Amino acid sequence: MTARDDELVLLPLGGAGEIGMNFNAYGFGPPDARKWIVVDCGVLFGRETTSPGVDVIMPDIRYLAERRGDVLAIVLTHAHEDHIGAIGHLWPMLRCPLYATPFTARLIEGKLEEAGLRDRVRVRSVPLGGHIDIGPFGIDFVSITHSIPEPNALAIKTPLGTVVHTGDWKIDPDPMLGTTADINALRKLGDEGVLATVCDSTNALVQGHSGSEARVRQALSALIGSLKGRVAVTAFASNIARIDSVAKAAREHGREIALVGRSMHKLVAAAKETGYLADFPPTLDEADAAQLPPRRVCYICTGSQGEPRAALARIAAGDHPNVALGSGDAVIFSSRIIPGNELAIFELHNKLSALGVEVLTEQDHFVHVSGHPCRDELAEMYRWTRPRIAVPVHGELRHMSEHARLARELQVPEAVVVENGHMLRLAPGKAMIVDEVPSGRVHLDGKVLVEEGAGLARARRALGFAGIIAITLVLDSKGRVATDPAFVIDGIPEPVHAAIRDAAAEAIKRHKKGDEEALRESVRRAARRAASDAWGKKPVTRVEIVWV
Amino acid sequence: MTARDDELVLLPLGGAGEIGMNFNAYGFGPPDARKWIVVDCGVLFGRETTSPGVDVIMPDIRYLAERRGDVLAIVLTHAHEDHIGAIGHLWPMLRCPLYATPFTARLIEGKLEEAGLRDRVRVRSVPLGGHIDIGPFGIDFVSITHSIPEPNALAIKTPLGTVVHTGDWKIDPDPMLGTTADINALRKLGDEGVLATVCDSTNALVQGHSGSEARVRQALSALIGSLKGRVAVTAFASNIARIDSVAKAAREHGREIALVGRSMHKLVAAAKETGYLADFPPTLDEADAAQLPPRRVCYICTGSQGEPRAALARIAAGDHPNVALGSGDAVIFSSRIIPGNELAIFELHNKLSALGVEVLTEQDHFVHVSGHPCRDELAEMYRWTRPRIAVPVHGELRHMSEHARLARELQVPEAVVVENGHMLRLAPGKAMIVDEVPSGRVHLDGKVLVEEGAGLARARRALGFAGIIAITLVLDSKGRVATDPAFVIDGIPEPVHAAIRDAAAEAIKRHKKGDEEALRESVRRAARRAASDAWGKKPVTRVEIVWV
Repeated sequence: MTARDDELVLLPLGGAGEIGMNFNAYGFGPPDARKWIVVDCGVLFGRETTSPGVDVIMPDIRYLAERRGDVLAIVLTHAHEDHIGAIGHLWPMLRCPLYATPFTARLIEGKLEEAGLRDRVRVRSVPLGGHIDIGPFGIDFVSITHSIPEPNALAIKTPLGTVVHTGDWKIDPDPMLGTTADINALRKLGDEGVLATVCDSTNALVQGHSGSEARVRQALSALIGSLKGRVAVTAFASNIARIDSVAKAAREHGREIALVGRSMHKLVAAAKETGYLADFPPTLDEADAAQLPPRRVCYICTGSQGEPRAALARIAAGDHPNVALGSGDAVIFSSRIIPGNELAIFELHNKLSALGVEVLTEQDHFVHVSGHPCRDELAEMYRWTRPRIAVPVHGELRHMSEHARLARELQVPEAVVVENGHMLRLAPGKAMIVDEVPSGRVHLDGKVLVEEGAGLARARRALGFAGIIAITLVLDSKGRVATDPAFVIDGIPEPVHAAIRDAAAEAIKRHKKGDEEALRESVRRAARRAASDAWGKKPVTRVEIVWV
Repeated sequence: MTARDDELVLLPLGGAGEIGMNFNAYGFGPPDARKWIVVDCGVLFGRETTSPGVDVIMPDIRYLAERRGDVLAIVLTHAHEDHIGAIGHLWPMLRCPLYATPFTARLIEGKLEEAGLRDRVRVRSVPLGGHIDIGPFGIDFVSITHSIPEPNALAIKTPLGTVVHTGDWKIDPDPMLGTTADINALRKLGDEGVLATVCDSTNALVQGHSGSEARVRQALSALIGSLKGRVAVTAFASNIARIDSVAKAAREHGREIALVGRSMHKLVAAAKETGYLADFPPTLDEADAAQLPPRRVCYICTGSQGEPRAALARIAAGDHPNVALGSGDAVIFSSRIIPGNELAIFELHNKLSALGVEVLTEQDHFVHVSGHPCRDELAEMYRWTRPRIAVPVHGELRHMSEHARLARELQVPEAVVVENGHMLRLAPGKAMIVDEVPSGRVHLDGKVLVEEGAGLARARRALGFAGIIAITLVLDSKGRVATDPAFVIDGIPEPVHAAIRDAAAEAIKRHKKGDEEALRESVRRAARRAASDAWGKKPVTRVEIVWV
């Protein structure tokens, strides 16, 4: 039963336009009284180029925060940071229950603990394949495969139809950990009728199939078997199947395992606590592992993306307390390069090479498969679910556009490329954008949340590009210049400083008493122009006035 | 005839440890009276992550500058920026003649013109396959293939043996422009005996062969033939064979050509002036091309690396004066992604997608081949030249290490991985490092040269990361605080400012007169700690004192 003016809408606030920061809201009801559920609440990692000094970026959710009485739940598809990383920061704006399967729930609880929210938030654990009812939404959790335990697609059932929200997924017939994808459930949803499939676009530009973890495991075993010295393998700590693959491959060749890095320990513990890794080999601690002959040890390390404080960066810099690698040893990067991390990773490769360590990566060896669906897999998803509407999400514009093009080729009647903040009505009627709401990005800058639009990161980029001139002028009660000005000049070549000081002094000399604003502006301009003439760059230039 | 204490040494000052900034010096004579020639004088491009506000980076050549009376010549192998880009900046420190083949000479003259040095510098044009004698060095120019007209290997003959300095190269049996590689000359050098081969390492990690331009030309023709709307192709302007390939492919399908971007016009003109592109099709200007039906036009554009001011970035932003692309049009990236440019290029892809433009790249179509030798080609080079010593250059440490490993596998008796500033004695005796000289990087920061070691870029990174607090205190002649301090706070979240001001005021209040340094330091610490407590980051904090 639906009221005549009920609508079902999708409102992406993050992830439509970027790979990361996933945050999708589904609304049901008449336009003036919608009830909302949120699917995923993730972060995007900051970039030194565009947002120096910003660790993580999250969606601007003010639209929902203003309606939080109508936000019934946040449902998490899986535990990657780009799906759960913003919970600790954004939950206080929504204050609704969280729903997730056990492994994800376990990691969310850790996050809430860190944020001091553990006692305030109820995390409701949903069994694999489970069902929950939240207001007008009935949600089936459908097990799928990805690069972390317990990835779920959600079948969101409403009186106006069913949405299949895929989350991050691939089809791995042999995932080595957890169940295979519940293809029967997806087919059954297709048989019953799917209104819309809202789907991962990450690999929409990549032909073929993402490949199976089982083949990676075999290849890692062969590769590790061929190595004579110490072996360290780096992979995402959340890729528990991969960690298990490495451990088993190492054991097959008589190597002991040592986990290195805080998040490696944390994720392996979370997996064990939730029933995974029952046959994971015993691990040595780092110090004991260092006592073994080189060909008897395999380290499994954090730091595959060149993160400067992670285990592998410290090993490469020679300042890890317990792990040292050198000539004859090898490091296997069992991971992809996340775009933007190239230079940091190559620097890490070079540091390892400088130690004499052999570096083996997916560019030269088969040591990694992606966790996201390539085009053949996307085609299968559309064959199973047969939606009326395809809504690509989780991608940059180029991935989503190509994904939509593919969906149309596959005869999906409607394929809509959405943007963050665009409210897409899925039913009734043809899919269409019915509203545009405030959206954007919020930076976690230090420990303060700052709207991207406030321009703070842009202001710091300006400082990073051309430095700063700060001049303080001292005026007496009659508005006359009382003493020499004070200068703070930073980030500007030493030989340019004199020209700046001279130009400011000249401008002050020309000043007649009164009209402080004119004085301030003429000093500012003179100093900035002097820097530009001598240096070719225009620093941030600020002039303050004090009166004595 | 050699004197008993004559030595032949190689001193790389750039390019051993990075792909770029190529600068190699060869010295001959007794250690206290060496004569030098320099091979190549290039730049490295700055990175916003590590050196914000720095356009180009060049080698620190103070060691040679101090001996410039003994530096006899700079010989340029080819005209890429990473081989000739520093001439305008570094020539004044060496003031010796320049030698290059005609196309390279033509471009160097343009650079000298820009640097205001045209009248002071003699550029000596050497014919292809030519020979020059410079002091104890006899140099044969050996034509090779690469991704620019007139690449040369140099056979540097000395009384102590011959060095083959490859420059940048590949083996293209069908380069489509200029001659093929003079393999006979390389073989003949091998027959006569080669002491050392100093060789490009860029693709030492890549199996196989780099491929031929002829195949790219065929593939471009097929691809352009399949497109219906406007086509724009972006490639490096210096890759004249590629520009010619695009033009011919477009003409085959009835499209007119328009060149877009300053360096595209400049490089095509230089090629024509030096005898290349005799059958290049006539080009339309941008405005005329815009009048043609979409399927009759092909733009060839600068901007393949996402450079923000290049033609393609302006087209994608919709603010190019004469070129507009939209739905149904296509852009072909006939180029690789230079590491570090990924995010800028992907942003460009997304902007084009947002316009409805189809984006075609080497990731999904065969539209590019590398100009550098893959492992099979390196093996051929060692078979032809059969050196006693292999010296990998032009690579990061990882490329050079792997290159050396390959050379050893190929039975080269000695393979030496060098670092910038390490002086490698090639003869007499076993190759060994005999000296280490000052080396490093110099930043072109604005228009000022700044030593990397001076820390200016690092200082600006600190500003970019956490902003600045500049405080000016005003003291009277008795050392008492005369008035409220002035604050300049930039790059710090607004809500943190009050805490900084309050903390500084507190510290001032606690001050007893006299001991200005103690006052300055206590205010600095208080302000910085307040920022750190409220924000979690520590800004650059400077306190100045003025007396009235």
